[in-house]
Parts: sequence; C-alpha cells; structure tokens
Amino acid sequence: MKRGVLIVLSGPSGVGKGTVRKALFEETDIDFQYSISMTTRNPREGEMNGEDYFFVTREEFEKNIAEGNMLEYAEYVGNYYGTPKTFIDDTLASGRDVFLEIEVQGALQVKEKMPEGAYIFLTPPDLDALKERLVGRGTEDMDVIDKRVNTAASEIRMMANYDYAVVNDEVENAVQRIKDIVKVERLRVNRVLPEYIAMIEEIDK
Amino acid sequence: MKRGVLIVLSGPSGVGKGTVRKALFEETDIDFQYSISMTTRNPREGEMNGEDYFFVTREEFEKNIAEGNMLEYAEYVGNYYGTPKTFIDDTLASGRDVFLEIEVQGALQVKEKMPEGAYIFLTPPDLDALKERLVGRGTEDMDVIDKRVNTAASEIRMMANYDYAVVNDEVENAVQRIKDIVKVERLRVNRVLPEYIAMIEEIDK
Repeated sequence: MKRGVLIVLSGPSGVGKGTVRKALFEETDIDFQYSISMTTRNPREGEMNGEDYFFVTREEFEKNIAEGNMLEYAEYVGNYYGTPKTFIDDTLASGRDVFLEIEVQGALQVKEKMPEGAYIFLTPPDLDALKERLVGRGTEDMDVIDKRVNTAASEIRMMANYDYAVVNDEVENAVQRIKDIVKVERLRVNRVLPEYIAMIEEIDK
Repeated sequence: MKRGVLIVLSGPSGVGKGTVRKALFEETDIDFQYSISMTTRNPREGEMNGEDYFFVTREEFEKNIAEGNMLEYAEYVGNYYGTPKTFIDDTLASGRDVFLEIEVQGALQVKEKMPEGAYIFLTPPDLDALKERLVGRGTEDMDVIDKRVNTAASEIRMMANYDYAVVNDEVENAVQRIKDIVKVERLRVNRVLPEYIAMIEEIDK
C-alpha cells in the first residue's frame, strides 16, 4: 500500500491560507483528508465529533499530550486545541493524502515530528511585488518602506523552514501550484523507494 | 536574476531516455538548453561546434580536466567525451534551465559536483508491472523470475541516488511528469530563498 502524502499549508497571518484551503477542497480531482483537530471546548450546534473536531475531555487531551500523540497543541481561552498524530498516521497508512492548514508556530512543531511531509509556505503577493514597488520608484516615505522591508524580511526568515514557497497572487493559481506540488511529491524517490523495496522483498521470499 | 534549474535525466540502459528527451524537446511550452558535451573526436559532416558538441583538441580537453571543469568524462575508442561545467553554470546563471541526459555512472559524478540539480531516474514500466506480472500468477519459470528480480533490485539500488522516479509507461506521460517536476522545482524554498534574500539586501542598502 502506497503511503499518502502529508501536505502542510502555512504562512504569515492574513496571507489567505483559509481561502486557498477552501478553494482547494472544492477541486473535484483531489481526495485529501482534512486533518481534524482535537479540542476540549464544547461542540457548537451542528458540529460533529470526528468531523469538525475530535471533542474530548481535558483529561483525555492531557493523556494524548502525555503519550506524545499531539503533533502540536496550544491553550486558548481555557481550552486545548491540537493536532493528533494517530489520525494523520492512520490516514496516510491507508494511502490517502492528509491536508493540514496551520499557522507558522504549529507548522514548525509538526515538522519536527513528521519531517516527511510537504511543507508549503504561502507568501503574500506583496513579497514578490515588493522589489518592483519599492526599488523601482523611490518616491515613497522611508518609514513606510522600512516597515514593509522588515515585515518581508521576517516572512522570509519563516519561509526558510519550508520545502515550497507558493505565491498567493490569485487563489486559483495558488491552488494549482499546490496540486502540482502534491502530484510531484508522489514521484520523489524517498516516497516510492520503500514501496519498491517492499515489492522486491515480497517477491524474494 | 532567477537561476535556472539543472535537470538531469538518467536511468538504466534501454529504458528510453533518448526517446523521452526527444519528445520533451518537441514540447512548445518549455525552453530548456540541452547540455552540450565536449569531445576530442572529429566533427562528422554537418556537425557544428557549440551545437552538437564542443569540439576540442586532446590538449584542451585535458586542460579542462586539470582545471576541474569536467563534471564527468570518459574515454571511448581513443577519444574523450565529457560534460563541461562552465557552459552549464553560465546558462543557469542567465536564468535558463539546462537539461542533461546521461547514463547512470555519469549522473552520479555530476551529482557530486552539482547536487542542487533535479535528478530524475527513468524507470522501466516493468519495474512497476513486475509485482503484478510475477506475484500474481506464479506460472513462470523460477530462473526467469530470479533474473528479473535481480535486474529490478539493481535498478532500485541505482534509483536511491536520485530525487525523482519517473515511470516510462508511455512517452507522453513521462514527458508530462518531467515538465511537472521542473515546474514544481521552481517553487522549492532552497531555489527561491536566495532570490528573496538578495531582494531584501538590495532594498536595505
């Protein structure tokens, strides 16, 4: 059984991760399992356990932490939120790709535990257009330029931890790039080699 | 200036590297520079220097070896054949992608000197179909099976040195996969990061 690909989409806040994720899941030629978070907060009306979240007690969540099952977690307004490893592992083992949309801090924690994922950094189009906008003219206020350069520099530092940089110039372009990445990740030798080796070992028995 | 991608296509002999390369260069939406080899043999009628080969004297070729300019080379029927680094470097620096089709031994030598390339291993469809063909039936002669398994195992060992495995089931499929790989390689952070850093440094001056 060919293992699925873990796709992690992250990027600076406000870059449009949620919009890209929604557009991606509307595509008809993909079959990603969305990574379902675990939380101790109460379900809201209409929310389903195992669909919107895994709803658990505080005790259960802390047991998951203690057993090393949380790829990342945080406490927010008195409730835990996190990404359980078992669900992702089982889905990947079944051959299905898993998609995780997460902010930068969480992504880095996930990467430590699952480095085999495809880590995609969504960049603002500004970063790409920055040079033309700023260097080209030279008419803007130095304070404005400095602030933009600082923001861009900090985003570039974040990007260095990822495998891919996808510019979110147009949502449909970003979606297409992510689909291309997943297609090509399936061709990477470190993904296909275990399958070939298993095949040879099975035949050699 | 964005640096071009070095694409190295290799694979076991008889897998169809040349056929795939020819089909790839007939595509209208790519602009790869084919890596031109250097040789000491005499030009045949119609062959152009700097187009079919770089035709040089034995002395010049050996000077290139001594200066570390040969990514790989071999002597064959009294003549040198090899891949000069300067031509590839200059082309990549100009922003153009370079395509190199080469046998497995040569590819490994190139990789030692230019690990930043995208190394693609073209696999015979047999490798993929092997399991179904052999395990599924069990009607074939054990000697035949053993020989095929050994060949497959040695090809898998070669594959481990590459970045991508592309199955040559149909030439047009293999061509499309290579085009996808190049498209996605351009999104890899280790390729775009230097460009972003240079941009910030330039603005910060």
